[in-house]
Amino acid sequence: MKICGFLQKNNSLDEKGRLAGQKNLLSCDNSDRDARFRLTETDFSNLFARDLLPAKNGEEATIQFLLELVDILTNYIKKTFDRSTKVLDFHHPHQLLEGMEGFNLELSDQPESLEQILVDCRDTLKYGVRTGHPRFFNQLSSGLDIIGLAGEWLTSTANTNMFTYEIAPVFVLMEQLTLKKMIEMVGWPSGEGDGIFSPGGAISNMYSVMIARYKYYPEVKTKGMSAAPRLVLFTSEHSHYSIKKAGAALGFGSENVILLSTDERGRVIPADLEAKILEAKQKGYVPLFVNATAGSTVYGAFDPINEIADICEKYNLWLHVDGAWGGGLLMSRKHRHKLSGVERANSVTWNPHKMMGVPLQCSAILVREKGILAGCNSMCAGYLFQPDKQYDVTYDTGDKAIQCGRHVDIFKFWLMWKAKGTIGFEQHIDKCLDLSQYLYNKIKNREGYQMVFDGEPQHTNVCFWYIPPSLRSMPEGEERREKLHKVAPKIKAMMMESGTTMVGYQPQGNKVNFFRMVVSNLAVTQSDIDFLIDEIERMGVDL
Amino acid sequence: MKICGFLQKNNSLDEKGRLAGQKNLLSCDNSDRDARFRLTETDFSNLFARDLLPAKNGEEATIQFLLELVDILTNYIKKTFDRSTKVLDFHHPHQLLEGMEGFNLELSDQPESLEQILVDCRDTLKYGVRTGHPRFFNQLSSGLDIIGLAGEWLTSTANTNMFTYEIAPVFVLMEQLTLKKMIEMVGWPSGEGDGIFSPGGAISNMYSVMIARYKYYPEVKTKGMSAAPRLVLFTSEHSHYSIKKAGAALGFGSENVILLSTDERGRVIPADLEAKILEAKQKGYVPLFVNATAGSTVYGAFDPINEIADICEKYNLWLHVDGAWGGGLLMSRKHRHKLSGVERANSVTWNPHKMMGVPLQCSAILVREKGILAGCNSMCAGYLFQPDKQYDVTYDTGDKAIQCGRHVDIFKFWLMWKAKGTIGFEQHIDKCLDLSQYLYNKIKNREGYQMVFDGEPQHTNVCFWYIPPSLRSMPEGEERREKLHKVAPKIKAMMMESGTTMVGYQPQGNKVNFFRMVVSNLAVTQSDIDFLIDEIERMGVDL
Repeated sequence: MKICGFLQKNNSLDEKGRLAGQKNLLSCDNSDRDARFRLTETDFSNLFARDLLPAKNGEEATIQFLLELVDILTNYIKKTFDRSTKVLDFHHPHQLLEGMEGFNLELSDQPESLEQILVDCRDTLKYGVRTGHPRFFNQLSSGLDIIGLAGEWLTSTANTNMFTYEIAPVFVLMEQLTLKKMIEMVGWPSGEGDGIFSPGGAISNMYSVMIARYKYYPEVKTKGMSAAPRLVLFTSEHSHYSIKKAGAALGFGSENVILLSTDERGRVIPADLEAKILEAKQKGYVPLFVNATAGSTVYGAFDPINEIADICEKYNLWLHVDGAWGGGLLMSRKHRHKLSGVERANSVTWNPHKMMGVPLQCSAILVREKGILAGCNSMCAGYLFQPDKQYDVTYDTGDKAIQCGRHVDIFKFWLMWKAKGTIGFEQHIDKCLDLSQYLYNKIKNREGYQMVFDGEPQHTNVCFWYIPPSLRSMPEGEERREKLHKVAPKIKAMMMESGTTMVGYQPQGNKVNFFRMVVSNLAVTQSDIDFLIDEIERMGVDL
Repeated sequence: MKICGFLQKNNSLDEKGRLAGQKNLLSCDNSDRDARFRLTETDFSNLFARDLLPAKNGEEATIQFLLELVDILTNYIKKTFDRSTKVLDFHHPHQLLEGMEGFNLELSDQPESLEQILVDCRDTLKYGVRTGHPRFFNQLSSGLDIIGLAGEWLTSTANTNMFTYEIAPVFVLMEQLTLKKMIEMVGWPSGEGDGIFSPGGAISNMYSVMIARYKYYPEVKTKGMSAAPRLVLFTSEHSHYSIKKAGAALGFGSENVILLSTDERGRVIPADLEAKILEAKQKGYVPLFVNATAGSTVYGAFDPINEIADICEKYNLWLHVDGAWGGGLLMSRKHRHKLSGVERANSVTWNPHKMMGVPLQCSAILVREKGILAGCNSMCAGYLFQPDKQYDVTYDTGDKAIQCGRHVDIFKFWLMWKAKGTIGFEQHIDKCLDLSQYLYNKIKNREGYQMVFDGEPQHTNVCFWYIPPSLRSMPEGEERREKLHKVAPKIKAMMMESGTTMVGYQPQGNKVNFFRMVVSNLAVTQSDIDFLIDEIERMGVDL
C-alpha cells in the first residue's frame, strides 16, 4: 500500500505562554520541540510487529503504522455519525467463525504482516456494532464521545495502573478531585465522603454490600460470615441483578436478598419494605442493607429514597442507592429532584459510562463515611504499599480496592468534564430526557401502541408494546399474549438483519416481551426517534 | 495554532483481493471508499467539545482534533523509547494540586476550549510516569507494545460491551478463541476448559475461590455461608494478598486463609500444606481450596504444583494456580516446565497484561470444568439475556461473569497474538528471562551486593540488597539491619527525584528492605541493566 503526502510543522512558537486567550498554546518551546508527524510511503506487507519500536530504527514504521490505524479509526468515527450507514452488518456466530471474506479469527504460531493486521482492524470494525450510531438504542451505554475517546487513547498510551501515586501521580489526583465533585453532587456534608472507581456497576454494588457488612459486623472480615447473625438484604424486584449476585458471592446467599414489591411504575413500595423487615426479624433474620434504585434498568424507575431512608433510620440499616443508570441526573438542575434524599444514603453507585456518555468502563462507588472503604478492604500488604516512600502515601489507593492493579478509568471522564463543564453534562442529560418525552408523547395515544405503564417516563426509558394490525382486534387472553410475546423478538431480529436500528426488548414479571427504548447518546435527534417508530411499523405491519 | 499539510489517497485498488502476498490490501473498493485524512489549519482556541461530532459540520473539527491528539501521543511514544528522556518528572501531590505552570486539575462548571484540552493532554503525559521506558522496572506490568496500543485505540473507538454477542459479536468470538488457545497451553484435555477475562488478577483469583465453593457447596449460592461447614483456604505466605482479600470478601474470613511456609526461595513446602490440612481438620475445619502461586510477586517463586496437586487429590481439594505473573511462561518451551503440573489444576489465573506485555487490563480466569463458571454466577436475568433472540445465545457471556457490563479486554491481546504469533510471545518471555540471568550473574559476586536468596532466579525477579561502603564492614546485628532497611528507600527517592530509572523495593518477612528487580518490557537491553546498577551505586555510595 502506498501513501503519499506530507505534514510538517512550519511554525515554532512559545509553549510557556499559557495565559488565557493567547494563541498557539500547543506549539513547543525550544527546549522541548517535537517534530510533527510526517506521512511517507510505507509498504506494510513486509513489515512485522518486530519491526516496530523498540526495534532499532523502528520509529518511522511505528508512526506510519499508528497513522494508518488512525485513518481506519477516523473513517469509522465519521461513519458512526452518518445516518446513511448501517448500525450493524449482522452475521451469525458460525458465519464469523468460518471466516468472512478472509477475516480469520484463529490465532497461530507465526506472525502476520502489519498489512494483514491493519486489515484485521478494519474487519473487526466492519463486523461489529456501531454503538455510537444515532440509531443504536440497544443499551444504557451508547454514543461515542470524541473527548472521551481522546481520553481513552491517551490513557492506553500512558498504560499505567491506579494502585499508587508513584506510578500514576496525575491520574490518582484526578480521581480524587473528580470523586470530590461527585460527592458534592450527592450532597454529603463537606468533609464527608470517599470513593473509588471500579470496573462497573455490579462491582460497585458489591462494594456497597461489603462495606455495609464491615460497618455493622467488622469481624466478618477476619472471621467470616459465621461471626455474624443471619443477615438479609433488601432490594426491589425491579432492581439490577447485581445485588443478588453480590449476595451470592459474598456469602449471604441469594435467597437472603429479599425482593421488594413495586408500584405499577416499578418503584419500591415503602410499606412493603417495612413489612418485610418486620417479617425477617420475626423469623430471626437480621436486616442489614437496603438498596434503593435510582433509575431501574427496564422502567427507569426511581425508588422514593426519602421514604426508604426514613425506614432505614428507624431500623438502623445501611442505605445504598444504585444510581448506576440514574446517577447522571444529579448533574441536571431540572431532573436531580428524582434522586431527592440521595444525600441520606450511606453509599451510592454512579456510572458515568451510562447516562453521561463516558466511554466504557467508568463506574464509581461513593461512600459517605470516610475511612471505612480502606478499613473494609485493606490487607496492608507491605510488599506492595511501602510506608517509607518519599511522598505522602495517603495518596496511594491500592489498599482501598478489592482489586490490586486497577485500570485508569478516570482520565476520559475528567477530560470530558473539563471539556464540557458541568453545564455540558447537564445539557446532555436534559436533551436525552426531552427526547424520551418526545417519544412518549408521540406514541402514548398512537394506534398500534400500548404503554407498559401509564404516565410520563421518569428517566429516558420508554416501555411499550407494538401491536401489529392482526392483533389489534383480538380479545385479551392467552392467545393474544402468546402472539404478542413474539412480536418484539421478531421485529428485533428483522432490525438486526437489516441493520438499520437496534432497540432492546424483554419480558418483565407477568408482562410479555415489550420494547424498552432508552436514549443516552447526544447524537440522537427527534428524526431518529421518528425513524425507530417507522421501522417498527414497517417491520411489524404484517406480523 | 496552525498546521499546514495534506495527505490524500492517490491510489484506488481492490480491497477484495486478500490473497496472500497481494499488495494494497488496505485500500478500498469502490463501494466502500474512505477519504483519507487531510490535515488543515485549525485554530482550536475558539472550538469546544460541542463543536465536535455529532455537531452539524463537526466532522472536520473532530478529525483535526484527534490528529492533534495523535501528534501528542506519537511524540510521547517516541520519547518513551528514547533513553535520553527521563522516566518521570517527579512532583509531590501538593505541587500538582497547586497547579504546575497552569496545569489545573480542578473541574469547573464551564467548558474549556479544545486548545486548552490538548494542553491538558500534553501536561497529563508530562507529569506522568513513562511505564514503557526501557529503564522503568518498577512493576510487573511495564512496556508499551505498539500493537497492543493500536488494539486499545480501536477498542475504545468501538466502545462496546462484552455481555452479549448481539453488541460485541467479533469480540465475543475472539475471547472464546483466545481462551481456547490459553486452555491448550495449560494442557487440559480437549473438550474441557472454560474461562472469562476479568478486570485483573485479584478478581480472577476471587472467581477461583467462588467457583471452588460452588463446586463443593453449591447451596451457598442461594443459602449463604451458613449452609457450609467452616471452610478454610490455603495459600503461601509469599502469595499475592488477593487470596486473603477474596477470603475476606466472600465471607470465609481472612483468618481462615491459612498461610503456608515456604523454603528459602519462597516456594511452598508441600509437607507444610499437608500438616496444615490435617491440623485444620483436627480443629473441625473443612479444607476447601489450595492456591499454588506460579511466579510470586516478590521472589518470582514457582510453587511445586505437582506435589501440591498430589495432596489436593488425596484430600479432595480444589487446586487453583495463580499464574497472574508466571502464566506467561507457558508460552516458552524453555521455561514452561516451571509450571509443570498446571494441567492438574482446577482453575488458573493468567494475566497477559503482566509478563506478556499486553496493555492493562488483561487477565483471564480459566476453569477446567465446563459449565461451572455459569452455574456459579448465573442469575438468569431474563430482562438482560433474552433466550428468544435470533442467534445462538450460548455465545452471550454476561451471565458467566460477576460483572454485568464488561470492558473489551480481549482485542488488544488477540491482535498482539496475530501480530507476533505464539513464537513472538515466546521470544519476549525468553529475552526477559535472559536479562534477569544477566543481572543475576552480574551482581551475585559483586562487591556491595547481597542476594536475598541463593541460586538463579526462576522468573525475572532478582532480589538483592545494595550495601553502601559505610555498611560493608559493619558487623551483622540490629544497627546494621536498621541502617540497611533505609538504604533502598533512600536510593529509590533519589531515583525518582532524578527521574533516571525506577525499581521497586520492599521488606519481606524478617528481611529488611531490598530491591526487587523485574523485567517484562521488550525494550530493555543489557545496557539498561548496567545503567540500573550504575545508578544504584552512584546514588548509594555515600549513604
